[in-house]
Amino acid sequence: MAESKSLEIGKKAFKKFTHGLETGEWEAFLEMLTDDFTFWFPTGQYHGLNQGKEKAREFFRFVSEAFSEGLFISLDNIVSNEKTVIFEFRDEGLFRGVPYKNRVAIAFDVRGDKICAYREYYGSDGKSN
Amino acid sequence: MAESKSLEIGKKAFKKFTHGLETGEWEAFLEMLTDDFTFWFPTGQYHGLNQGKEKAREFFRFVSEAFSEGLFISLDNIVSNEKTVIFEFRDEGLFRGVPYKNRVAIAFDVRGDKICAYREYYGSDGKSN
Repeated sequence: MAESKSLEIGKKAFKKFTHGLETGEWEAFLEMLTDDFTFWFPTGQYHGLNQGKEKAREFFRFVSEAFSEGLFISLDNIVSNEKTVIFEFRDEGLFRGVPYKNRVAIAFDVRGDKICAYREYYGSDGKSN
Repeated sequence: MAESKSLEIGKKAFKKFTHGLETGEWEAFLEMLTDDFTFWFPTGQYHGLNQGKEKAREFFRFVSEAFSEGLFISLDNIVSNEKTVIFEFRDEGLFRGVPYKNRVAIAFDVRGDKICAYREYYGSDGKSN
């Protein structure tokens, strides 16, 4: 079965997303977001629904400041339908210098060649794994 | 495109799962689990990886004791691949008498006609939405 368009675009975006987490360079990922992009984050100062690409830029800068030595990803699973791609992965790094690991599921909604929404879900409380 | 086998079985299991959350009756869902079923829960006394159908029975009893007036589901999205089905939903109810709502993603891994693994991810910290 041919890979669906949403899956193709979702995977491309995820590659740029993990590059952002690992290196702090987010421009390639941000270029893939629609101007009306929304994101849902489960906790902290960005808890809830956030709107707009500029808010996203600010958010990913904040993430990279917290994980300034990089946050590293092991991808476990990719699932999709015609509009959404969900990635289940584990991440590990230092959060403001303290060892951190988590299990995460993130959903990208695809519109055309871009990502119009992002929802993040936590699989552990981040304290242990 | 014909619905995949995993999607068909996943949806069937999800119906029984929501019935369990709403009513506290879990037997129909438990019947769909393999004996070596595993589940990952993000927090509390079941935090981490839990193994076996009996552990699952104990866990779902615990959930229904905490949400004794029922936990009600609004399903937002279903995504799948050949082995996994993920459901994004919101739930709302009373947790030991206190108003509770959350956004959740759960993954079911399908083997044959059964569910062999379950992973739960939280989209909010459960305190607000």
